[in-house]
Amino acid sequence: MKLVIIGGVAGGASAAARARRLSEAAEIILVERGPDVSFANCGLPYYLGGVIAERAKLLVTTPERLRTRFRIDVRTQSTAVRIEPANKTVRIRETGGREYDQPYDKLISAPGAAPIRPPLAGVDLPGIFTLRNLHDVDQIQTRLHAGVRQAVVVGAGFIGLELVENLVHRGISTTLVELADQVLPPLDPEMTTPIVETLKSHGVEILTGEAAAAFRATAEGLAVQLKSGRELTGQLVVLGVGVRPENALAVEAGLEVGARGGIKVNEFLQTSDPDIFAVGDAIETTDFVLGGPTQVPLAGPANRQGRIAADNVFGRASKYRGTQGTAVLGVFGRTAAMTGASAKTLRRLERPFHAVYIHPTDHAGYYPGAEQMTLKVLFDPETGRLLGAQGVGGAGVDKRIDVLAIALQARLTVFDLEEVELAYAPQYGSAKDPINMAGFVAAGWLRGDHPQVDVPSLLAMSDDARPLVLDVRTPEEFAAGHIPHAMNVPIDELRLRLAELPADRPIVAYCQVGQRGYLATRILRQLGKDAVNLSGGYRTYRLWQPNG
Amino acid sequence: MKLVIIGGVAGGASAAARARRLSEAAEIILVERGPDVSFANCGLPYYLGGVIAERAKLLVTTPERLRTRFRIDVRTQSTAVRIEPANKTVRIRETGGREYDQPYDKLISAPGAAPIRPPLAGVDLPGIFTLRNLHDVDQIQTRLHAGVRQAVVVGAGFIGLELVENLVHRGISTTLVELADQVLPPLDPEMTTPIVETLKSHGVEILTGEAAAAFRATAEGLAVQLKSGRELTGQLVVLGVGVRPENALAVEAGLEVGARGGIKVNEFLQTSDPDIFAVGDAIETTDFVLGGPTQVPLAGPANRQGRIAADNVFGRASKYRGTQGTAVLGVFGRTAAMTGASAKTLRRLERPFHAVYIHPTDHAGYYPGAEQMTLKVLFDPETGRLLGAQGVGGAGVDKRIDVLAIALQARLTVFDLEEVELAYAPQYGSAKDPINMAGFVAAGWLRGDHPQVDVPSLLAMSDDARPLVLDVRTPEEFAAGHIPHAMNVPIDELRLRLAELPADRPIVAYCQVGQRGYLATRILRQLGKDAVNLSGGYRTYRLWQPNG
Repeated sequence: MKLVIIGGVAGGASAAARARRLSEAAEIILVERGPDVSFANCGLPYYLGGVIAERAKLLVTTPERLRTRFRIDVRTQSTAVRIEPANKTVRIRETGGREYDQPYDKLISAPGAAPIRPPLAGVDLPGIFTLRNLHDVDQIQTRLHAGVRQAVVVGAGFIGLELVENLVHRGISTTLVELADQVLPPLDPEMTTPIVETLKSHGVEILTGEAAAAFRATAEGLAVQLKSGRELTGQLVVLGVGVRPENALAVEAGLEVGARGGIKVNEFLQTSDPDIFAVGDAIETTDFVLGGPTQVPLAGPANRQGRIAADNVFGRASKYRGTQGTAVLGVFGRTAAMTGASAKTLRRLERPFHAVYIHPTDHAGYYPGAEQMTLKVLFDPETGRLLGAQGVGGAGVDKRIDVLAIALQARLTVFDLEEVELAYAPQYGSAKDPINMAGFVAAGWLRGDHPQVDVPSLLAMSDDARPLVLDVRTPEEFAAGHIPHAMNVPIDELRLRLAELPADRPIVAYCQVGQRGYLATRILRQLGKDAVNLSGGYRTYRLWQPNG
Repeated sequence: MKLVIIGGVAGGASAAARARRLSEAAEIILVERGPDVSFANCGLPYYLGGVIAERAKLLVTTPERLRTRFRIDVRTQSTAVRIEPANKTVRIRETGGREYDQPYDKLISAPGAAPIRPPLAGVDLPGIFTLRNLHDVDQIQTRLHAGVRQAVVVGAGFIGLELVENLVHRGISTTLVELADQVLPPLDPEMTTPIVETLKSHGVEILTGEAAAAFRATAEGLAVQLKSGRELTGQLVVLGVGVRPENALAVEAGLEVGARGGIKVNEFLQTSDPDIFAVGDAIETTDFVLGGPTQVPLAGPANRQGRIAADNVFGRASKYRGTQGTAVLGVFGRTAAMTGASAKTLRRLERPFHAVYIHPTDHAGYYPGAEQMTLKVLFDPETGRLLGAQGVGGAGVDKRIDVLAIALQARLTVFDLEEVELAYAPQYGSAKDPINMAGFVAAGWLRGDHPQVDVPSLLAMSDDARPLVLDVRTPEEFAAGHIPHAMNVPIDELRLRLAELPADRPIVAYCQVGQRGYLATRILRQLGKDAVNLSGGYRTYRLWQPNG
């Protein structure tokens, strides 16, 4: 068996190591365009910020180790320039210029995805970068050492925000420009409010619904001209506006690619040529939750795909179940994470769903240091099956999203979440964990015990058509901020003050996070009132209306 | 509906609140022996240690709040002394002495479990306590304020170890006495090694396989005479040797109880009398993983059972799925956690299982601050279905056990763990998360790719019968400590030095954590050698042989 692997980072390196474990006899050739294999691309922003101090730490493995330990024929500085499926060869060009045809029995293609560099005027000026590999990071580092006072990051995705944090960490005044009307476009917009507030509190200027239009060199360094006409000044611009699958070789070789350019593969990660497999950021995979094709450039899936492709090369039928898009961002001590489908995606695909919000603390409130989070759980409104989840806040967000990620994998429902038995001691969780609470709220809605209205629906109602908005918090909480025109009747007085409520007007009750509002709803409905709870309470309201 | 609830802590208070949400009309009477309801019993040790500074924080809710917010007829200082199922009444005795019969339509019994106070000579001397409620904690606090230099904690379960930590935190020299031959008896013994080392490094003396025999008053305070004859001195003794279900009322009322004293209930948490439900630490429930009866006194299950019992009282068929025993301990910054069955339990029940060990870090090694953990995953050797998991280490142990707890609930297999898609950024996890790694190792064993021998099996072999033990780590690692009589051939030299290996002797390869040993096994087996990997490597060996 002569196995050729194109690309030596996450998917390619995993495939190579797995292949060797499966076969001592195979000839395994790894072709990598750059000088490095298997570097920690997710660590690049942190190296720029000085959080990861040594460049060597970014080298997860080296060509030398792949050679000695795994007996891989590693060929760095070697670019695959053409695949010829008919001859089963790959044309390889070395940096020095030499070219040759490398035969293969099986090929695994892991070329990755290239950062998009929009064809704007001046985009190739010095000081304007994308961030993909160690070469990029070295160039940015050099620029930083030359002195950068102001930076502009274009694109507020995961890498963009990590870059912003690290640039601020270095004392650089940073402006973030994002075409969408929110940061972190994979998340639902209201869930990004705490992240926006955190960024602002660290002095980051955020320009959403805005884009770079042109760049030019100035005495100050660079001027970034925006679509709106505004101009930003900086000595460094990093473009993080997305990636494009590296599909040129595949297309030229006649392999099928999807509508968004990802190389098409079957569940065995086999391309339209049965002797060619493809893995990682370059492929189109299946959306595990919703079905249908998707392209999710993430390190975890790429690594697992590499293993699976190697298995199939050596005759072990191994299937990739699809990608559910679990991702996490840490920024200035806050965490935002998600798994599965967002409300945005579900609406776009016209899939029915319902969402609940809770605002629990990561551990028991009576133990010091509890930090608050917001969890949004999306589920099928008929069956209760989980569709997705998002979390934002402090400690414990990553844990709950991981728990929900495996719940999603197992096709669990919100009824199952009610029954989850997680580890509880007061410094780790609560006797009713946030996951249980999410299950209780969602299942309560499904059972009809807990009718809820969401904030956008409330906001969409005209003032005349609005139900009575009943704030059941304390007068102190009410005074500190409330929904306009709300009436305040604390929950503990509600039963005694029923006569004050209008007889025939529907009621939307709310409290701080939803729990007292739920009890109010229960009390009122059992008395025959048309009452619903505002989903997630005032805290959720403030996610939508951060300025009051 | 007249609902009487006996007991106002976790299960009882949850049942009361749920009952009110289900029915505004019901009469709900909560009978509690003590002065407090719903206090944070899991917080008691931390209040003693001063970590939780205010006593008021331990009151999760108050009788007053249950009255005003939930309109519960809370009767504290009232002891239920007899249940008369035939008349459907509960005899209640108030602290003042007044007694009366309280009728009920439905009864929920949540009496809890009482700490066992062994009938030893001197056990009732001043300064010897158990820890169940705020009354106990106040008494211990008074004793501490009077001056305690040395303390003896009898019982090394979860509460015992939490107490030890908090006493040490207060500068008290503490000795831990445990009848079993290990601390934390719910865990498998080798998994407690890091906890023992942590306790010792904080100056705790640990006496396992030892028990208190008698107590007497001395000039120094108390003398604790041990079974071995040794005598310990202290001014405080806390007994944490287990709990016994409070079943007296149930037994007297003719309700069925199990072999270990727990009140028997069906899946609706209904006792043998259909109008009486029981929840919490007093009941015998079903072992979710293994089937069969079990008694697990944990706050999370008690809370959920309270909800479920209330549902059933109000005619909603709601089932309790059983308890899987998810638990966590924090001690001196380390975490030990478990879910499902232990190897000890599986062996006792003669259930076939296999276990794998991994020693990953909580997040990517290239990002600062990564902390190591050990995970043990137990699964069915035929189907790969998860049976249990244990973790010990630093950050991220609770997260992985929670993920495995939900995997267990969903009846997933180790093959599913290979495919888990968790949230990865370098400060949160790894592209191949510890959960994936556990899946890879376990599935590799199931598929026959990765034959392993465990440490006890290796240790049990006589020297003559032992295979060649091959250490494939670096010479530096080997020099720092290795298995006696091991031969050192670093993995990167293995292919070149095959001739040095004996031709016909079986080989057990090992490295630090198992990964290089696995590759060595793959290389050797493909060359026709009879080689297996030592499960979990040298680090696992040291769990069994902490002293070399």
